[in-house]
Amino acid sequence: MTNNDINSYFKLCQELIDNTLNDWLPANDTEPTKLHSAIRYSVLSGGKRVRPVLVFATAEAFGLQKEQALAAACAVELIHAYSLIHDDLPAMDDDDLRRGMPTCHIKYGEATAILAGDALQAMAFEILCSYGEHSAIARLEMMKTLSIASGSQGMVGGQAIDLDSVGQQLCLDSLERMHNFKTGALIEASIVLGALSATITNDEVLTPLRQYAKNIGLAFQVQDDILDVTSDTQTLGKTQGADEARNKPTYPALLGLEGAKQKAKELHLDSLKALDQLGQFDTFRLAQISEFIISRAR
Amino acid sequence: MTNNDINSYFKLCQELIDNTLNDWLPANDTEPTKLHSAIRYSVLSGGKRVRPVLVFATAEAFGLQKEQALAAACAVELIHAYSLIHDDLPAMDDDDLRRGMPTCHIKYGEATAILAGDALQAMAFEILCSYGEHSAIARLEMMKTLSIASGSQGMVGGQAIDLDSVGQQLCLDSLERMHNFKTGALIEASIVLGALSATITNDEVLTPLRQYAKNIGLAFQVQDDILDVTSDTQTLGKTQGADEARNKPTYPALLGLEGAKQKAKELHLDSLKALDQLGQFDTFRLAQISEFIISRAR
Repeated sequence: MTNNDINSYFKLCQELIDNTLNDWLPANDTEPTKLHSAIRYSVLSGGKRVRPVLVFATAEAFGLQKEQALAAACAVELIHAYSLIHDDLPAMDDDDLRRGMPTCHIKYGEATAILAGDALQAMAFEILCSYGEHSAIARLEMMKTLSIASGSQGMVGGQAIDLDSVGQQLCLDSLERMHNFKTGALIEASIVLGALSATITNDEVLTPLRQYAKNIGLAFQVQDDILDVTSDTQTLGKTQGADEARNKPTYPALLGLEGAKQKAKELHLDSLKALDQLGQFDTFRLAQISEFIISRAR
Repeated sequence: MTNNDINSYFKLCQELIDNTLNDWLPANDTEPTKLHSAIRYSVLSGGKRVRPVLVFATAEAFGLQKEQALAAACAVELIHAYSLIHDDLPAMDDDDLRRGMPTCHIKYGEATAILAGDALQAMAFEILCSYGEHSAIARLEMMKTLSIASGSQGMVGGQAIDLDSVGQQLCLDSLERMHNFKTGALIEASIVLGALSATITNDEVLTPLRQYAKNIGLAFQVQDDILDVTSDTQTLGKTQGADEARNKPTYPALLGLEGAKQKAKELHLDSLKALDQLGQFDTFRLAQISEFIISRAR
Protein backbone atom coordinates (compact mmCIF):
# COMPACT_ATOMS: atom_id res chain seq x y z
CA MET A 1 0.00 0.00 0.00
CA THR A 2 2.79 2.42 0.95
CA ASN A 3 4.58 1.63 -2.29
CA ASN A 4 1.43 2.23 -4.29
CA ASP A 5 0.93 5.51 -2.50
CA ILE A 6 4.41 6.87 -3.26
CA ASN A 7 3.97 5.89 -6.89
CA SER A 8 0.75 7.92 -7.06
CA TYR A 9 2.52 10.82 -5.42
CA PHE A 10 5.34 10.70 -7.95
CA LYS A 11 2.80 10.53 -10.76
CA LEU A 12 0.94 13.57 -9.43
CA CYS A 13 4.17 15.55 -9.09
CA GLN A 14 5.36 14.45 -12.52
CA GLU A 15 2.14 15.60 -14.18
CA LEU A 16 2.30 18.95 -12.46
CA ILE A 17 5.92 19.60 -13.41
CA ASP A 18 5.50 18.28 -16.95
CA ASN A 19 2.43 20.44 -17.57
CA THR A 20 4.08 23.51 -16.10
CA LEU A 21 7.29 23.10 -18.09
CA ASN A 22 5.27 22.35 -21.22
CA ASP A 23 3.42 25.64 -20.76
CA TRP A 24 6.44 27.66 -19.77
CA LEU A 25 9.13 26.52 -22.23
CA PRO A 26 9.18 28.35 -25.58
CA ALA A 27 7.17 26.51 -28.26
CA ASN A 28 8.83 24.40 -30.94
CA ASP A 29 8.02 27.05 -33.54
CA THR A 30 9.64 29.89 -31.56
CA GLU A 31 12.84 31.06 -33.27
CA PRO A 32 15.43 29.56 -33.21
CA THR A 33 13.19 26.55 -33.80
CA LYS A 34 15.83 23.81 -33.83
CA LEU A 35 17.19 24.97 -30.49
CA HIS A 36 13.75 25.13 -28.90
CA SER A 37 12.83 21.71 -30.31
CA ALA A 38 16.00 20.26 -28.80
CA ILE A 39 15.21 21.90 -25.46
CA ARG A 40 11.64 20.58 -25.37
CA TYR A 41 12.74 17.14 -26.58
CA SER A 42 15.26 16.85 -23.74
CA VAL A 43 13.16 18.35 -20.95
CA LEU A 44 9.78 16.80 -21.78
CA SER A 45 10.92 13.23 -22.44
CA GLY A 46 9.72 11.83 -19.15
CA GLY A 47 12.27 11.33 -16.43
CA LYS A 48 11.62 10.53 -12.80
CA ARG A 49 11.50 14.19 -11.70
CA VAL A 50 13.09 13.21 -8.40
CA ARG A 51 14.34 16.74 -7.74
CA PRO A 52 10.96 18.47 -8.26
CA VAL A 53 9.32 15.73 -6.13
CA LEU A 54 11.79 16.63 -3.34
CA VAL A 55 10.98 20.33 -3.73
CA PHE A 56 7.24 19.61 -3.49
CA ALA A 57 7.50 17.18 -0.58
CA THR A 58 9.67 19.61 1.39
CA ALA A 59 7.39 22.56 0.70
CA GLU A 60 4.39 20.44 1.74
CA ALA A 61 6.11 19.51 5.01
CA PHE A 62 5.86 23.21 5.86
CA GLY A 63 2.22 23.55 4.89
CA LEU A 64 2.56 24.76 1.27
CA GLN A 65 0.64 23.49 -1.74
CA LYS A 66 2.76 22.00 -4.54
CA GLU A 67 1.68 24.85 -6.83
CA GLN A 68 3.35 27.34 -4.48
CA ALA A 69 6.74 25.68 -5.02
CA LEU A 70 6.65 25.46 -8.81
CA ALA A 71 9.33 28.08 -9.50
CA ALA A 72 11.86 26.11 -7.45
CA ALA A 73 10.70 22.73 -8.81
CA CYS A 74 11.04 23.87 -12.43
CA ALA A 75 14.40 25.55 -11.82
CA VAL A 76 16.06 22.48 -10.30
CA GLU A 77 14.67 20.25 -13.05
CA LEU A 78 15.97 22.57 -15.78
CA ILE A 79 19.44 22.53 -14.20
CA HIS A 80 19.25 18.73 -14.03
CA ALA A 81 18.07 18.53 -17.67
CA TYR A 82 20.95 20.73 -18.88
CA SER A 83 23.47 18.65 -16.95
CA LEU A 84 22.20 15.43 -18.57
CA ILE A 85 22.51 16.90 -22.08
CA HIS A 86 26.09 18.02 -21.45
CA ASP A 87 27.07 14.82 -19.58
CA ASP A 88 25.92 12.75 -22.57
CA LEU A 89 28.13 14.65 -25.06
CA PRO A 90 30.87 12.74 -26.92
CA ALA A 91 33.60 14.66 -25.07
CA MET A 92 32.02 13.69 -21.74
CA ASP A 93 30.23 10.35 -21.12
CA ASP A 94 29.50 9.83 -24.85
CA ASP A 95 26.05 8.29 -24.34
CA ASP A 96 23.69 7.59 -27.23
CA LEU A 97 20.68 6.64 -25.15
CA ARG A 98 18.78 8.46 -22.41
CA ARG A 99 15.41 7.37 -21.06
CA GLY A 100 15.22 4.86 -23.89
CA MET A 101 15.55 7.55 -26.56
CA PRO A 102 18.44 9.02 -28.59
CA THR A 103 20.35 11.61 -26.57
CA CYS A 104 20.08 15.27 -27.54
CA HIS A 105 23.32 15.41 -29.56
CA ILE A 106 22.43 12.21 -31.43
CA LYS A 107 19.10 13.69 -32.46
CA TYR A 108 20.01 17.36 -32.96
CA GLY A 109 23.79 17.41 -33.37
CA GLU A 110 26.51 18.32 -30.94
CA ALA A 111 26.46 22.11 -31.37
CA THR A 112 22.72 22.32 -30.74
CA ALA A 113 23.05 20.04 -27.71
CA ILE A 114 25.73 22.27 -26.18
CA LEU A 115 23.56 25.35 -26.79
CA ALA A 116 20.39 23.65 -25.51
CA GLY A 117 22.19 22.90 -22.24
CA ASP A 118 23.50 26.46 -22.03
CA ALA A 119 20.06 27.93 -22.65
CA LEU A 120 18.44 25.62 -20.09
CA GLN A 121 20.78 26.85 -17.39
CA ALA A 122 19.80 30.45 -18.14
CA MET A 123 16.12 29.43 -18.16
CA ALA A 124 16.45 27.87 -14.72
CA PHE A 125 17.50 31.23 -13.31
CA GLU A 126 14.93 33.08 -15.38
CA ILE A 127 12.02 30.98 -14.08
CA LEU A 128 13.27 31.37 -10.52
CA CYS A 129 13.21 35.16 -11.04
CA SER A 130 9.75 35.35 -12.47
CA TYR A 131 7.42 32.42 -11.78
CA GLY A 132 4.87 32.35 -8.94
CA GLU A 133 4.58 34.42 -5.79
CA HIS A 134 7.73 34.86 -3.73
CA SER A 135 9.38 37.85 -2.09
CA ALA A 136 12.49 39.23 -3.77
CA ILE A 137 14.50 38.16 -0.72
CA ALA A 138 13.25 34.56 -0.93
CA ARG A 139 13.97 34.40 -4.66
CA LEU A 140 17.44 35.79 -4.13
CA GLU A 141 18.18 33.19 -1.46
CA MET A 142 16.97 30.46 -3.85
CA MET A 143 19.17 31.81 -6.66
CA LYS A 144 22.19 31.88 -4.42
CA THR A 145 21.60 28.32 -3.27
CA LEU A 146 21.00 27.05 -6.80
CA SER A 147 23.92 28.88 -8.42
CA ILE A 148 26.39 27.58 -5.84
CA ALA A 149 24.96 24.04 -5.95
CA SER A 150 25.21 23.85 -9.72
CA GLY A 151 28.63 25.47 -10.11
CA SER A 152 32.30 24.55 -9.94
CA GLN A 153 32.10 23.56 -6.29
CA GLY A 154 28.82 21.74 -6.78
CA MET A 155 27.34 19.74 -9.65
CA VAL A 156 29.77 20.85 -12.39
CA GLY A 157 32.72 20.34 -10.05
CA GLY A 158 31.48 16.80 -9.39
CA GLN A 159 31.32 16.04 -13.09
CA ALA A 160 34.89 17.32 -13.46
CA ILE A 161 36.08 15.05 -10.64
CA ASP A 162 34.11 12.15 -12.15
CA LEU A 163 35.81 12.57 -15.55
CA ASP A 164 39.23 12.80 -13.96
CA SER A 165 38.65 9.61 -11.97
CA VAL A 166 37.70 7.30 -14.85
CA GLY A 167 40.14 4.39 -14.83
CA GLN A 168 41.51 5.45 -11.43
CA GLN A 169 41.29 3.56 -8.16
CA LEU A 170 39.19 5.78 -5.90
CA CYS A 171 38.86 5.04 -2.21
CA LEU A 172 35.41 5.15 -0.63
CA ASP A 173 35.98 8.67 0.73
CA SER A 174 36.92 10.07 -2.68
CA LEU A 175 33.98 8.34 -4.35
CA GLU A 176 31.65 9.79 -1.74
CA ARG A 177 33.13 13.25 -2.15
CA MET A 178 32.66 13.08 -5.92
CA HIS A 179 29.00 12.07 -5.58
CA ASN A 180 28.35 14.71 -2.92
CA PHE A 181 29.37 17.27 -5.52
CA LYS A 182 27.95 15.64 -8.64
CA THR A 183 24.44 14.65 -7.56
CA GLY A 184 24.31 15.49 -3.84
CA ALA A 185 24.63 19.25 -4.26
CA LEU A 186 21.58 19.59 -6.51
CA ILE A 187 19.50 17.19 -4.40
CA GLU A 188 20.36 19.22 -1.32
CA ALA A 189 19.51 22.42 -3.18
CA SER A 190 16.14 20.96 -4.19
CA ILE A 191 15.26 20.39 -0.56
CA VAL A 192 16.57 23.77 0.59
CA LEU A 193 14.65 25.47 -2.24
CA GLY A 194 11.49 23.64 -1.14
CA ALA A 195 12.00 25.03 2.36
CA LEU A 196 12.82 28.53 1.06
CA SER A 197 9.61 28.45 -1.00
CA ALA A 198 7.86 28.20 2.38
CA THR A 199 10.09 31.03 3.71
CA ILE A 200 11.90 28.65 6.05
CA THR A 201 15.34 30.16 6.64
CA ASN A 202 16.33 29.17 10.18
CA ASP A 203 19.21 26.78 10.65
CA GLU A 204 17.43 24.65 13.26
CA VAL A 205 15.25 23.45 10.40
CA LEU A 206 17.64 23.76 7.47
CA THR A 207 20.47 21.81 9.12
CA PRO A 208 18.49 18.56 9.65
CA LEU A 209 17.02 18.99 6.17
CA ARG A 210 20.53 19.23 4.74
CA GLN A 211 21.53 16.08 6.65
CA TYR A 212 18.51 14.27 5.26
CA ALA A 213 19.44 15.52 1.79
CA LYS A 214 23.05 14.38 2.01
CA ASN A 215 21.98 10.89 3.02
CA ILE A 216 19.35 10.40 0.35
CA GLY A 217 21.60 12.02 -2.26
CA LEU A 218 24.27 9.44 -1.62
CA ALA A 219 21.70 6.63 -1.30
CA PHE A 220 20.38 7.63 -4.71
CA GLN A 221 23.84 7.23 -6.19
CA VAL A 222 24.54 3.91 -4.47
CA GLN A 223 21.23 2.58 -5.82
CA ASP A 224 22.14 3.89 -9.31
CA ASP A 225 25.40 1.97 -9.16
CA ILE A 226 23.59 -1.16 -7.95
CA LEU A 227 21.05 -0.92 -10.79
CA ASP A 228 23.84 -0.49 -13.34
CA VAL A 229 24.99 -3.98 -12.29
CA THR A 230 21.67 -5.75 -11.60
CA SER A 231 19.18 -4.27 -14.08
CA ASP A 232 18.93 -4.41 -17.87
CA THR A 233 19.14 -1.71 -20.53
CA GLN A 234 15.42 -1.71 -21.29
CA THR A 235 14.37 -1.22 -17.68
CA LEU A 236 17.02 1.45 -17.08
CA GLY A 237 16.37 3.38 -20.29
CA LYS A 238 20.12 3.79 -20.54
CA THR A 239 22.95 1.40 -21.32
CA GLN A 240 23.27 -1.26 -18.60
CA GLY A 241 26.80 -2.01 -17.43
CA ALA A 242 28.02 1.34 -18.76
CA ASP A 243 29.90 2.20 -15.56
CA GLU A 244 31.84 -1.06 -15.54
CA ALA A 245 32.53 -0.83 -19.28
CA ARG A 246 34.04 2.62 -18.71
CA ASN A 247 35.98 1.38 -15.70
CA LYS A 248 34.19 3.93 -13.53
CA PRO A 249 34.57 3.65 -9.78
CA THR A 250 31.27 2.42 -8.23
CA TYR A 251 29.99 1.27 -4.85
CA PRO A 252 29.51 -2.37 -5.93
CA ALA A 253 33.08 -2.36 -7.27
CA LEU A 254 34.39 -1.07 -3.93
CA LEU A 255 32.05 -2.80 -1.46
CA GLY A 256 30.69 -5.75 -3.42
CA LEU A 257 27.01 -5.93 -4.36
CA GLU A 258 25.86 -6.94 -0.86
CA GLY A 259 28.04 -4.30 0.76
CA ALA A 260 26.56 -1.67 -1.53
CA LYS A 261 23.03 -2.74 -0.65
CA GLN A 262 23.92 -2.53 3.04
CA LYS A 263 25.37 0.95 2.48
CA ALA A 264 22.15 2.12 0.83
CA LYS A 265 20.13 0.81 3.78
CA GLU A 266 22.35 2.62 6.30
CA LEU A 267 22.05 5.89 4.41
CA HIS A 268 18.28 5.47 4.34
CA LEU A 269 18.20 4.96 8.13
CA ASP A 270 20.44 8.00 8.67
CA SER A 271 18.10 10.09 6.55
CA LEU A 272 15.20 9.06 8.82
CA LYS A 273 17.24 10.01 11.90
CA ALA A 274 17.70 13.50 10.44
CA LEU A 275 13.94 13.78 9.91
CA ASP A 276 13.39 12.84 13.56
CA GLN A 277 14.78 16.27 14.47
CA LEU A 278 11.88 17.89 12.58
CA GLY A 279 9.17 16.36 14.75
CA GLN A 280 6.85 19.34 14.60
CA PHE A 281 6.55 19.13 10.80
CA ASP A 282 4.86 16.54 8.63
CA THR A 283 7.85 14.77 7.09
CA PHE A 284 5.96 11.60 6.13
CA ARG A 285 6.50 12.13 2.39
CA LEU A 286 10.19 12.80 2.82
CA ALA A 287 10.57 9.52 4.72
CA GLN A 288 8.63 7.73 2.02
CA ILE A 289 10.80 9.21 -0.72
CA SER A 290 13.93 8.05 1.09
CA GLU A 291 12.58 4.50 1.09
CA PHE A 292 11.59 4.80 -2.56
CA ILE A 293 15.11 5.88 -3.52
CA ILE A 294 16.75 2.70 -2.25
CA SER A 295 14.00 0.34 -3.46
CA ARG A 296 13.42 1.69 -6.98
CA ALA A 297 14.11 -0.57 -9.96
CA ARG A 298 15.19 2.14 -12.42
CA MET B 1 43.61 63.58 -26.69
CA THR B 2 40.09 62.11 -26.67
CA ASN B 3 41.47 58.84 -27.99
CA ASN B 4 44.14 58.79 -25.33
CA ASP B 5 41.52 59.50 -22.71
CA ILE B 6 39.22 56.62 -23.71
CA ASN B 7 42.22 54.30 -23.74
CA SER B 8 43.07 55.32 -20.18
CA TYR B 9 39.45 54.80 -19.20
CA PHE B 10 39.45 51.30 -20.68
CA LYS B 11 42.70 50.54 -18.88
CA LEU B 12 41.28 51.72 -15.55
CA CYS B 13 38.14 49.63 -16.02
CA GLN B 14 40.15 46.61 -17.16
CA GLU B 15 42.37 46.76 -14.08
CA LEU B 16 39.38 47.02 -11.77
CA ILE B 17 37.53 44.11 -13.35
CA ASP B 18 40.66 41.96 -13.66
CA ASN B 19 41.60 42.52 -10.02
CA THR B 20 38.07 41.86 -8.81
CA LEU B 21 37.67 38.67 -10.82
CA ASN B 22 41.14 37.56 -9.77
CA ASP B 23 40.12 37.95 -6.12
CA TRP B 24 36.66 36.48 -6.52
CA LEU B 25 37.26 33.43 -8.72
CA PRO B 26 38.27 30.23 -6.88
CA ALA B 27 42.05 29.78 -6.74
CA ASN B 28 43.90 27.39 -9.05
CA ASP B 29 44.48 25.01 -6.14
CA THR B 30 40.81 24.84 -5.15
CA GLU B 31 39.35 21.39 -5.98
CA PRO B 32 38.65 20.46 -8.72
CA THR B 33 41.95 22.13 -9.65
CA LYS B 34 41.97 21.46 -13.39
CA LEU B 35 38.51 22.99 -13.75
CA HIS B 36 39.42 26.07 -11.74
CA SER B 37 42.69 26.47 -13.67
CA ALA B 38 40.74 26.34 -16.93
CA ILE B 39 38.28 28.92 -15.61
CA ARG B 40 41.00 31.32 -14.48
CA TYR B 41 42.98 30.79 -17.69
CA SER B 42 39.98 31.72 -19.82
CA VAL B 43 38.67 34.60 -17.74
CA LEU B 44 41.95 36.27 -16.78
CA SER B 45 43.66 36.18 -20.19
CA GLY B 46 43.12 39.83 -21.00
CA GLY B 47 40.27 40.69 -23.28
CA LYS B 48 38.90 44.15 -24.01
CA ARG B 49 36.29 43.98 -21.22
CA VAL B 50 33.90 45.99 -23.38
CA ARG B 51 30.83 44.78 -21.47
CA PRO B 52 32.14 45.72 -18.00
CA VAL B 53 33.28 49.07 -19.41
CA LEU B 54 29.70 49.63 -20.59
CA VAL B 55 28.36 48.70 -17.15
CA PHE B 56 30.75 51.15 -15.47
CA ALA B 57 30.16 53.99 -17.92
CA THR B 58 26.38 53.64 -17.60
CA ALA B 59 26.49 53.47 -13.81
CA GLU B 60 28.74 56.55 -13.76
CA ALA B 61 26.29 58.44 -15.99
CA PHE B 62 23.88 58.14 -13.05
CA GLY B 63 26.38 59.29 -10.44
CA LEU B 64 27.69 55.92 -9.21
CA GLN B 65 31.32 54.99 -8.64
CA LYS B 66 32.63 52.09 -10.73
CA GLU B 67 33.08 50.05 -7.54
CA GLN B 68 29.33 50.23 -6.93
CA ALA B 69 28.62 48.44 -10.21
CA LEU B 70 31.10 45.59 -9.82
CA ALA B 71 28.56 42.81 -9.33
CA ALA B 72 26.94 43.61 -12.67
CA ALA B 73 30.28 44.17 -14.42
CA CYS B 74 31.66 40.82 -13.26
CA ALA B 75 28.46 38.96 -14.07
CA VAL B 76 28.25 40.14 -17.69
CA GLU B 77 31.95 39.41 -18.21
CA LEU B 78 31.59 35.87 -16.84
CA ILE B 79 28.66 35.22 -19.18
CA HIS B 80 30.76 36.57 -22.07
CA ALA B 81 33.74 34.43 -21.02
CA TYR B 82 31.63 31.26 -20.89
CA SER B 83 30.15 31.99 -24.33
CA LEU B 84 33.62 32.37 -25.84
CA ILE B 85 34.77 29.03 -24.41
CA HIS B 86 31.73 27.22 -25.80
CA ASP B 87 31.79 29.07 -29.14
CA ASP B 88 35.40 27.98 -29.67
CA LEU B 89 34.61 24.26 -29.20
CA PRO B 90 35.21 21.86 -32.11
CA ALA B 91 31.46 21.24 -32.51
CA MET B 92 30.89 25.01 -32.75
CA ASP B 93 33.37 27.45 -34.37
CA ASP B 94 36.34 25.09 -33.82
CA ASP B 95 38.85 27.83 -33.00
CA ASP B 96 42.34 27.07 -31.74
CA LEU B 97 43.33 30.62 -30.93
CA ARG B 98 41.75 33.26 -28.70
CA ARG B 99 43.46 36.51 -27.69
CA GLY B 100 46.67 35.12 -29.18
CA MET B 101 46.62 32.06 -26.89
CA PRO B 102 45.40 28.47 -27.24
CA THR B 103 41.65 28.24 -26.64
CA CYS B 104 40.38 26.54 -23.49
CA HIS B 105 39.68 23.16 -25.09
CA ILE B 106 43.08 23.11 -26.80
CA LYS B 107 44.83 23.70 -23.47
CA TYR B 108 42.57 21.73 -21.08
CA GLY B 109 40.62 19.33 -23.30
CA GLU B 110 37.09 19.47 -24.56
CA ALA B 111 35.31 18.06 -21.51
CA THR B 112 36.95 20.54 -19.15
CA ALA B 113 36.17 23.40 -21.54
CA ILE B 114 32.47 22.47 -21.63
CA LEU B 115 32.40 22.28 -17.83
CA ALA B 116 34.38 25.52 -17.40
CA GLY B 117 31.75 27.31 -19.50
CA ASP B 118 28.93 25.72 -17.54
CA ALA B 119 30.49 26.68 -14.22
CA LEU B 120 31.12 30.25 -15.38
CA GLN B 121 27.46 30.73 -16.21
CA ALA B 122 26.51 29.61 -12.69
CA MET B 123 29.20 31.92 -11.25
CA ALA B 124 27.75 34.88 -13.14
CA PHE B 125 24.45 34.43 -11.33
CA GLU B 126 26.18 33.68 -8.04
CA ILE B 127 28.21 36.90 -8.09
CA LEU B 128 25.11 38.89 -9.02
CA CYS B 129 23.37 37.39 -5.94
CA SER B 130 26.11 38.14 -3.51
CA TYR B 131 28.64 40.81 -4.46
CA GLY B 132 28.43 44.43 -3.32
CA GLU B 133 25.54 46.46 -1.95
CA HIS B 134 22.24 46.21 -3.80
CA SER B 135 18.66 45.72 -2.68
CA ALA B 136 17.13 42.28 -3.27
CA ILE B 137 14.71 43.88 -5.73
CA ALA B 138 17.53 45.46 -7.76
CA ARG B 139 19.47 42.20 -7.82
CA LEU B 140 16.40 40.29 -8.93
CA GLU B 141 15.79 42.74 -11.77
CA MET B 142 19.42 42.35 -12.84
CA MET B 143 19.12 38.54 -12.74
CA LYS B 144 15.98 38.61 -14.84
CA THR B 145 17.60 40.89 -17.41
CA LEU B 146 20.78 38.83 -17.57
CA SER B 147 19.09 35.42 -17.71
CA ILE B 148 16.81 36.47 -20.57
CA ALA B 149 19.63 38.21 -22.46
CA SER B 150 21.90 35.18 -22.25
CA GLY B 151 19.28 32.52 -23.02
CA SER B 152 17.58 30.90 -26.00
CA GLN B 153 16.02 34.16 -27.14
CA GLY B 154 19.19 36.11 -26.49
CA MET B 155 22.88 35.27 -26.79
CA VAL B 156 22.55 31.47 -27.02
CA GLY B 157 19.72 31.81 -29.54
CA GLY B 158 21.95 34.05 -31.64
CA GLN B 159 24.72 31.48 -31.65
CA ALA B 160 22.19 28.85 -32.76
CA ILE B 161 21.04 31.06 -35.66
CA ASP B 162 24.68 31.80 -36.51
CA LEU B 163 25.56 28.10 -36.76
CA ASP B 164 22.50 27.40 -38.88
CA SER B 165 23.37 30.21 -41.28
CA VAL B 166 26.95 29.16 -42.13
CA GLY B 167 27.12 28.67 -45.88
CA GLN B 168 23.70 30.28 -46.37
CA GLN B 169 22.88 33.50 -48.14
CA LEU B 170 21.48 35.78 -45.43
CA CYS B 171 19.84 39.07 -46.30
CA LEU B 172 20.81 42.17 -44.30
CA ASP B 173 17.71 41.89 -42.08
CA SER B 174 18.47 38.29 -41.10
CA LEU B 175 22.11 39.10 -40.45
CA GLU B 176 21.09 41.99 -38.24
CA ARG B 177 18.58 39.85 -36.37
CA MET B 178 21.22 37.22 -35.71
CA HIS B 179 23.67 39.78 -34.34
CA ASN B 180 20.99 41.45 -32.24
CA PHE B 181 20.59 38.11 -30.50
CA LYS B 182 24.17 36.92 -30.49
CA THR B 183 26.07 39.99 -29.30
CA GLY B 184 23.42 42.70 -29.05
CA ALA B 185 21.43 41.12 -26.23
CA LEU B 186 24.37 40.94 -23.81
CA ILE B 187 25.60 44.41 -24.71
CA GLU B 188 22.11 45.77 -24.05
CA ALA B 189 21.97 43.83 -20.78
CA SER B 190 25.33 45.32 -19.74
CA ILE B 191 23.95 48.81 -20.13
CA VAL B 192 20.64 48.01 -18.43
CA LEU B 193 22.52 46.34 -15.55
CA GLY B 194 24.66 49.47 -15.21
CA ALA B 195 21.48 51.52 -14.90
CA LEU B 196 19.88 49.03 -12.49
CA SER B 197 23.02 49.21 -10.33
CA ALA B 198 22.11 52.87 -9.91
CA THR B 199 18.46 51.85 -9.23
CA ILE B 200 17.33 53.40 -12.50
CA THR B 201 14.17 51.51 -13.49
CA ASN B 202 11.99 54.05 -15.34
CA ASP B 203 11.35 53.52 -19.03
CA GLU B 204 11.97 57.16 -19.95
CA VAL B 205 15.61 56.49 -19.19
CA LEU B 206 15.86 52.78 -20.03
CA THR B 207 14.31 53.10 -23.50
CA PRO B 208 16.90 55.55 -24.88
CA LEU B 209 19.62 53.50 -23.19
CA ARG B 210 18.36 50.39 -24.95
CA GLN B 211 18.35 52.26 -28.27
CA TYR B 212 21.92 53.37 -27.67
CA ALA B 213 22.80 49.78 -26.80
CA LYS B 214 21.23 48.29 -29.92
CA ASN B 215 23.15 50.69 -32.13
CA ILE B 216 26.55 50.19 -30.54
CA GLY B 217 25.95 46.43 -30.33
CA LEU B 218 25.45 46.24 -34.05
CA ALA B 219 28.26 48.71 -34.72
CA PHE B 220 30.54 46.47 -32.68
CA GLN B 221 29.69 43.53 -34.91
CA VAL B 222 30.06 45.47 -38.14
CA GLN B 223 33.51 46.60 -36.99
CA ASP B 224 34.39 43.00 -36.06
CA ASP B 225 33.48 41.89 -39.57
CA ILE B 226 35.53 44.74 -41.06
CA LEU B 227 38.57 43.84 -38.96
CA ASP B 228 38.28 40.20 -39.98
CA VAL B 229 38.91 41.40 -43.54
CA THR B 230 41.38 44.26 -43.01
CA SER B 231 43.47 43.26 -39.99
CA ASP B 232 46.00 40.49 -39.43
CA THR B 233 46.01 37.48 -37.10
CA GLN B 234 48.62 38.93 -34.74
CA THR B 235 46.76 42.20 -34.20
CA LEU B 236 43.41 40.43 -33.82
CA GLY B 237 44.68 37.73 -31.48
CA LYS B 238 42.46 35.34 -33.41
CA THR B 239 42.63 33.87 -36.89
CA GLN B 240 42.25 36.61 -39.54
CA GLY B 241 39.92 35.83 -42.43
CA ALA B 242 38.17 33.12 -40.39
CA ASP B 243 34.68 34.36 -41.29
CA GLU B 244 35.37 34.25 -45.01
CA ALA B 245 37.09 30.87 -44.75
CA ARG B 246 33.97 29.50 -43.04
CA ASN B 247 31.73 31.15 -45.61
CA LYS B 248 30.02 33.09 -42.81
CA PRO B 249 27.67 35.91 -43.77
CA THR B 250 29.31 39.27 -42.92
CA TYR B 251 28.64 42.96 -43.48
CA PRO B 252 31.57 43.45 -45.88
CA ALA B 253 30.32 40.45 -47.89
CA LEU B 254 26.83 41.97 -48.13
CA LEU B 255 27.62 45.68 -48.38
CA GLY B 256 31.21 45.75 -49.60
CA LEU B 257 34.00 47.10 -47.38
CA GLU B 258 33.11 50.76 -47.92
CA GLY B 259 29.42 50.04 -47.40
CA ALA B 260 30.20 48.30 -44.12
CA LYS B 261 32.29 51.26 -42.95
CA GLN B 262 29.43 53.59 -43.82
CA LYS B 263 27.01 51.35 -41.91
CA ALA B 264 29.22 51.46 -38.80
CA LYS B 265 29.31 55.25 -38.98
CA GLU B 266 25.51 55.49 -39.26
CA LEU B 267 25.02 53.21 -36.26
CA HIS B 268 27.46 55.35 -34.29
CA LEU B 269 25.48 58.51 -35.15
CA ASP B 270 22.19 56.82 -34.22
CA SER B 271 23.66 55.82 -30.86
CA LEU B 272 24.52 59.47 -30.21
CA LYS B 273 20.97 60.49 -31.10
CA ALA B 274 19.66 58.07 -28.47
CA LEU B 275 21.98 59.65 -25.89
CA ASP B 276 20.60 63.09 -26.78
CA GLN B 277 17.38 62.01 -25.06
CA LEU B 278 19.29 61.67 -21.79
CA GLY B 279 20.37 65.29 -21.62
CA GLN B 280 20.15 65.57 -17.83
CA PHE B 281 22.72 62.83 -17.34
CA ASP B 282 26.44 62.81 -18.03
CA THR B 283 26.64 60.50 -21.04
CA PHE B 284 30.04 61.73 -22.23
CA ARG B 285 31.70 58.35 -21.64
CA LEU B 286 28.97 56.45 -23.45
CA ALA B 287 29.41 58.69 -26.49
CA GLN B 288 33.14 58.18 -26.35
CA ILE B 289 32.75 54.39 -26.15
CA SER B 290 30.49 54.43 -29.19
CA GLU B 291 33.22 56.19 -31.14
CA PHE B 292 35.84 53.80 -29.82
CA ILE B 293 33.82 50.81 -30.99
CA ILE B 294 33.86 51.82 -34.63
CA SER B 295 37.44 53.07 -34.65
CA ARG B 296 39.19 50.22 -32.77
CA ALA B 297 41.85 48.18 -34.57
CA ARG B 298 41.23 44.87 -32.75
